[in-house]
Amino acid sequence: MSLLTVPRRCALAGALLLGAALPAAAGPALDAAASDPVALGWMQGFPPPDDKLIGQPDANYFSFPKLRWTVCHFRELLPTKRVSRGLGAPRPLPYALDAGIDALRFTPLGGGAPMSWADALAANYTDGILVLHKGRVVYERYAGCLDEAGVHGAMSVTKSLTGLLAEILVAEGRLDEQAQVASLIPELAASAFGNATVQQVMEMTTGIAYSEDYSDPNAEVWAYSAAASPLPKPADYRGPRTYYQYLATVRPEGRHGEAFAYKTVNTDVLGWIVARTTGQSLTDLLSARIWSRIGAEQDAYYTVDSIGTPFAGGGLSAGLRDLARVGQLILDGGMLDGERLFPAAAVERIRAGGDRAAFARAGYRQILGGSYRGMWWVFHNPHGAFAARGVHGQTIYIDPRAEMVVVRFASHPQAANAANDPTSLPAYQALAEYLLGKP
Amino acid sequence: MSLLTVPRRCALAGALLLGAALPAAAGPALDAAASDPVALGWMQGFPPPDDKLIGQPDANYFSFPKLRWTVCHFRELLPTKRVSRGLGAPRPLPYALDAGIDALRFTPLGGGAPMSWADALAANYTDGILVLHKGRVVYERYAGCLDEAGVHGAMSVTKSLTGLLAEILVAEGRLDEQAQVASLIPELAASAFGNATVQQVMEMTTGIAYSEDYSDPNAEVWAYSAAASPLPKPADYRGPRTYYQYLATVRPEGRHGEAFAYKTVNTDVLGWIVARTTGQSLTDLLSARIWSRIGAEQDAYYTVDSIGTPFAGGGLSAGLRDLARVGQLILDGGMLDGERLFPAAAVERIRAGGDRAAFARAGYRQILGGSYRGMWWVFHNPHGAFAARGVHGQTIYIDPRAEMVVVRFASHPQAANAANDPTSLPAYQALAEYLLGKP
Repeated sequence: MSLLTVPRRCALAGALLLGAALPAAAGPALDAAASDPVALGWMQGFPPPDDKLIGQPDANYFSFPKLRWTVCHFRELLPTKRVSRGLGAPRPLPYALDAGIDALRFTPLGGGAPMSWADALAANYTDGILVLHKGRVVYERYAGCLDEAGVHGAMSVTKSLTGLLAEILVAEGRLDEQAQVASLIPELAASAFGNATVQQVMEMTTGIAYSEDYSDPNAEVWAYSAAASPLPKPADYRGPRTYYQYLATVRPEGRHGEAFAYKTVNTDVLGWIVARTTGQSLTDLLSARIWSRIGAEQDAYYTVDSIGTPFAGGGLSAGLRDLARVGQLILDGGMLDGERLFPAAAVERIRAGGDRAAFARAGYRQILGGSYRGMWWVFHNPHGAFAARGVHGQTIYIDPRAEMVVVRFASHPQAANAANDPTSLPAYQALAEYLLGKP
Repeated sequence: MSLLTVPRRCALAGALLLGAALPAAAGPALDAAASDPVALGWMQGFPPPDDKLIGQPDANYFSFPKLRWTVCHFRELLPTKRVSRGLGAPRPLPYALDAGIDALRFTPLGGGAPMSWADALAANYTDGILVLHKGRVVYERYAGCLDEAGVHGAMSVTKSLTGLLAEILVAEGRLDEQAQVASLIPELAASAFGNATVQQVMEMTTGIAYSEDYSDPNAEVWAYSAAASPLPKPADYRGPRTYYQYLATVRPEGRHGEAFAYKTVNTDVLGWIVARTTGQSLTDLLSARIWSRIGAEQDAYYTVDSIGTPFAGGGLSAGLRDLARVGQLILDGGMLDGERLFPAAAVERIRAGGDRAAFARAGYRQILGGSYRGMWWVFHNPHGAFAARGVHGQTIYIDPRAEMVVVRFASHPQAANAANDPTSLPAYQALAEYLLGKP
């Protein structure tokens, strides 16, 4: 199925859920200050002026600079499903703010003049960043559409939470990672996923005919996006209507297990496996296992398809501090206040990483020597760092050696993290080295 | 504009937001146990079976018995806007449960055999009910789709919160209830609302050509509903696209101030006035003035139109305990833990009631001698009771003499409260008399 057969309105609505990099206007993008969504006045007033509206008649709500507003407001545009924090009191985060961090200097990847940590935030269109060192908040900043009481789209950071839940089930013996997908989800037997193992799905080494190249009108992502849209479909629409229906149509291409290829549909398959295995939706399971256990300050939520399936590959919106709580729990191997929330093996498996040779074939220049395991990016650097990463600059970056967790929400004009990695990955490394040895 | 010119898909999507009583299947409705949404298996499984799906392809999601699931899940079907509880710890509700309440007996309105309080709950398809006496929880039950950690559509109870916010602004001198609407919202100058006063809007005594009779295909509610829908409109749609645009089209009929007529559009005008007056959306204002101040356990939310306007006339979903906190705050005239959250005059004005002669002309047989003020129903009974009321059985019922607050969520097959009033209003009165004189 190509764009030619998918009503464009449907396809766009879904594509935007994926954080698609829609064609940008010509010329350099506005910088962070000039594109600030509050300063630009999006959606202010009752009603907002026509040229400041971002809403459902406007299928372009994820184009820059509008996306700088949209990343904090997905639920106002789309149906969503809650991840409940429960009803208890939030668990306060201890603070030990370090005023020296802003002046920290580092050299961007690929060379260029050294820059300060503070300058990098604007360069990366950071909407919120929080750093935990030894479990204490040493740095916290908000900008753009976000504040401490708001939530922000986590984009593909979502994948890593899906992966964590799956790794927990594997570690608990409830999910066999060597099982073939068809044995768990018979509906996928005839698809490319049917004879892949759970592990190949979790490492994204499945051999599938699926392109996320938005510049190609024949890319499968358009049909996927149309299927994923929760909005009513046109009367003449004949394609798949849900994530699950779309996944069953994915055809094989190449062999499973040979090369890492970052394709969101793998995560949606994994989300399906997790839901079928536990009998709980991803949102309910994430609440039960994590969100209601960490003293979260805010409910999180997922965008959903037309039958309420949470978007396992990118649907999460959450508060920055709560994402930091999740990161700390992972750094601590599942322990919180002396209580074990999940087996340490779940994180150990992620930290050990995936198939590095398979990963190398994908050619990620910013993550040379890395791997992908349980839907986490593993750097295999001397600090043992690993990360959840989402388009436009979202991350949970965990540095075990420095006992550091960085969580960042951002709204970079370019979707691909290759655009912000040069001024963020070395900044995290410099901060880790700065924090090493501090009490 | 009639149904003939409004695409039916759009109209239905919006109409369902209003809690429209769509034509029911022939024969008596399933009882509460037989229509239990969990027992019926709606939306269970990954994916749910086709005959258990309730989603966007199905424009009938607010028909009985599906509505018994939908009332807890509006956000999964529609875009919504949050009412933040803030980030603090919830304020615990004190408990003093009274096991004697279930056996309390009363005689239904209109006669019939006496029935027990407990039996009335099932008869009324109650999803959750909580009673505060002197600020302590003496009764709490959940059923159907609801539990203590869930939220439920408040339907037109929403109106009373819009009205409370407006009464607060009046009491604070920020809103002149004698002002003409056109002086506050110039966009409404040419509409029927233009030369009405704010008070006439707040008492729903405006003279407007607007019918909410869903059995009439020419009723204005269909065009209103199409305008209100947040879903993308068909390419050939030419009508108003937002609440605000629709309100500007309402034509006059009759004279302002003569008769009470329960028409939701009045509340949407009031919501517009409140937002324009304060510079805050209803959701943000409700959070700032109430939700973040009462120690709420959960965020609430509103459904929105295509430009994010919260549905002032019926869009709220909230937790039962939080609605009880709101009711207690109102009973206490704006005081909480020794702090004044809003002027006592705001509640005094509501309790004093509206124009009883104007109200009588509407012929509400269950509320003879009553009135409507600040979007609250005032019974003018010996206990001074007043209530927020929403279709299918939602209520905040406040009895000042008995120092009692009853909050109830329900999913009665019939929308009109005339269907559940006979077995609920006398139950509340019996409970009030039972509680009178208790410590």
